Amino acid sequence: METSIALASRIHALECSACGQSYSAFALQRVSACCQMPLLAVYDLHEPLSKASICQAEGSMWRYREVLPLLHEENRVSLGEGFTPLLTLGTLASRYNLRSLVLKDEGQNPTGSFKARGLSMAISKAKELGVRGCIVPTAGNAGVAMAAYCAKAGMQAVVAMPRHTPKAFKEECYWYGAEVQLIDGLINDCAAWVRQTNANGELLDVSTLKEPYRIEGKKTMGYEIAEQLNWKLPDVILYPAGGGTGLIGIWKAFQEMKVLGWLAAETKLPRMVAVQASNCCPLIETYTGRQANAHHYVGKPTIANGLAVPRPLGEPLMLEVLRESRGTAVSITDEQMVEGMRELGRLEGLFVAPEGAAVWMAARHLLHTGWLRADEQILLLNTGSAQKYLENVEGQY
Amino acid sequence: METSIALASRIHALECSACGQSYSAFALQRVSACCQMPLLAVYDLHEPLSKASICQAEGSMWRYREVLPLLHEENRVSLGEGFTPLLTLGTLASRYNLRSLVLKDEGQNPTGSFKARGLSMAISKAKELGVRGCIVPTAGNAGVAMAAYCAKAGMQAVVAMPRHTPKAFKEECYWYGAEVQLIDGLINDCAAWVRQTNANGELLDVSTLKEPYRIEGKKTMGYEIAEQLNWKLPDVILYPAGGGTGLIGIWKAFQEMKVLGWLAAETKLPRMVAVQASNCCPLIETYTGRQANAHHYVGKPTIANGLAVPRPLGEPLMLEVLRESRGTAVSITDEQMVEGMRELGRLEGLFVAPEGAAVWMAARHLLHTGWLRADEQILLLNTGSAQKYLENVEGQY
Ligand SMILES: Cc1ncc(COP(=O)(O)O)c(C=O)c1O
Ligand SMILES: Cc1ncc(COP(=O)(O)O)c(C=O)c1O
Ligand SMILES: [Zn+2]
Ligand SMILES: [Zn+2]
Repeated sequence: METSIALASRIHALECSACGQSYSAFALQRVSACCQMPLLAVYDLHEPLSKASICQAEGSMWRYREVLPLLHEENRVSLGEGFTPLLTLGTLASRYNLRSLVLKDEGQNPTGSFKARGLSMAISKAKELGVRGCIVPTAGNAGVAMAAYCAKAGMQAVVAMPRHTPKAFKEECYWYGAEVQLIDGLINDCAAWVRQTNANGELLDVSTLKEPYRIEGKKTMGYEIAEQLNWKLPDVILYPAGGGTGLIGIWKAFQEMKVLGWLAAETKLPRMVAVQASNCCPLIETYTGRQANAHHYVGKPTIANGLAVPRPLGEPLMLEVLRESRGTAVSITDEQMVEGMRELGRLEGLFVAPEGAAVWMAARHLLHTGWLRADEQILLLNTGSAQKYLENVEGQY
Repeated sequence: METSIALASRIHALECSACGQSYSAFALQRVSACCQMPLLAVYDLHEPLSKASICQAEGSMWRYREVLPLLHEENRVSLGEGFTPLLTLGTLASRYNLRSLVLKDEGQNPTGSFKARGLSMAISKAKELGVRGCIVPTAGNAGVAMAAYCAKAGMQAVVAMPRHTPKAFKEECYWYGAEVQLIDGLINDCAAWVRQTNANGELLDVSTLKEPYRIEGKKTMGYEIAEQLNWKLPDVILYPAGGGTGLIGIWKAFQEMKVLGWLAAETKLPRMVAVQASNCCPLIETYTGRQANAHHYVGKPTIANGLAVPRPLGEPLMLEVLRESRGTAVSITDEQMVEGMRELGRLEGLFVAPEGAAVWMAARHLLHTGWLRADEQILLLNTGSAQKYLENVEGQY
């Protein structure tokens, strides 16, 4: 029934994020051959593209298809991801005397987290490029999302997840028919298992930033923030950074929109804040100079499973975003996250993942130190729903 | 910061659903004084209202504000509910040789179910009418939604829920700061407790159809279906009916859109199918003549908690929808629901509530009997995500 409709994608190449070398956007790619670093998609943005090209009828991230990498409509693997609501947190703003506090609620995505965006895009491109099965190391949410999109696409799915991950993540993968491997350790230990198991490259490894398209899905959060705020950006965006695709992706979207003219040339871009867990905060250690980089960082588990990423491949790109945006990095304890969950639940009717709660607590901290001012517009990114985390926070309401 | 912006609501009265007597839409109302039956909102629809009045920037049910009962924007209590995706189920369609099978995924609502629509509307109107606290008997999802919207509105929330309801429903209510009363029995037993506890009427009882606005939120599903299908309706809609607000609400939306001219006069309305659980199917018993009505029906628990509604107040209205639309009613066993969950998970990447799985199994049954034809366009309404039901179906993937 489906026909091959060419989308108006403006993609024209992939580029090594470390040295700029160019790669084909029309063949299967992993990390760059030159530097073994992430590849980023590059689009023709200088040809005029009006905001009217945004497909208003599409209530999902696919409304921005011209700046997305999919070539043919028939390959889209979608469960309705994206275009999530931007909510005004009036009660918290009053309580803390803030001018404007908004939250983008990514918990309303398919499979309950923002990971749906990246995996919808990666699996769509995998389908377009003839892939038959995918494998991923995950802290939880990415694995569930991959399992769902692979099921939809009719692809095999193999997910490697820390053994201590709450049961709800594992069970949902099983319902999608995925194979789940439980690993003692954190996501880097899962990644080691994936490399070994998939040494022959039979399955596509969709690890964070090891293929170029998850970030293209994630960047749509940046496009949506701009559109939903009527093309005026907030002063500050707080984001819970693990692998960092969201942070890097949102920043990439802002750059693209400047070139497109969708953001006025004089638009001041937001200061970007990376929020991590005290139990696993490699970025903060590097950012503050306590280590040269995260290559040997050792993390501990946290109730914010998605933040337990000790050695992110995208570390240099994240640090660049913090520097360019004059942002900062903050770590939050598990106890503080529970306090944030309670406050967002009782005062705003939001049941947010510990990662989202961490972001709110980071805002409180930065208001306290004066880095954030009460008259600034503050945007919190809640990356997931708390549903699957119940086991981590049982009885602590 | 909020200012009083009058919305262009066309509401002008409430009407007794049994005898048509008129009541004020500008005062607090419960059931009709004349017949003790549900009150329904009536709008001025004969004055021209173009489809251009739909607020395209609003990615929620509030895009239809002219045909909703809220008078002042400042009273809106919203978590981003509605405008959920309509997904094409291509793999299942191929497997069963169907021309067009679509699913509206209400699991992507705030709090994980379509109950968010009704409660957003009811709590918004409660706020507009000066209410300080609300109480509700619930099979689970409505209670969670009420707790969330009451938290957002700063209102007291009291929820009465069967003791056997999965823990995830109870815990989420606690996170929103609600009081939860566990009751031995089903939702009708919870309702008895609510009547007794709230005999003085101190709290607003937002039981299904005992206040006129939850159904106004639910009807937006009907508006969205029409808009998302480009104003051409499907041949059949299958809906999991408990209290029945969704079924009645969607039908009400179709009638309103006919008057508005948003649906062409010659549009054939869909046949509406009410899907129930074999363990609790009062509607089917009445529809097939095995009982005069559900007043004394005794139901048993089912893994589709939302369908365990033995004595729905809206029964006559539901039967009217089935008759007018030349629809039917079907019951599905718990085992069949699990089979449906497996099929939707593995083939379509959807983790649907047992209620949603029941609807798919009902379609299969009706295709088998010939009541449904393979060349018809079939719309499944998945009312919730399976997240909170894990305990009901553990290990059955
Ligand atoms: C809920 C949640 N928030 C944040 C993150 C970190 O995301 P990123 O890898 O984009 O930094 C994850 C990753 O698993 C997550 O699941
Ligand atoms: C998931 C789900 N589906 C269906 C229903 C029944 O809905 P209605 O009362 O609109 O018939 C409920 C009610 O609790 C529910 O939670
Ligand atoms: Zn390079
Ligand atoms: Zn009457």
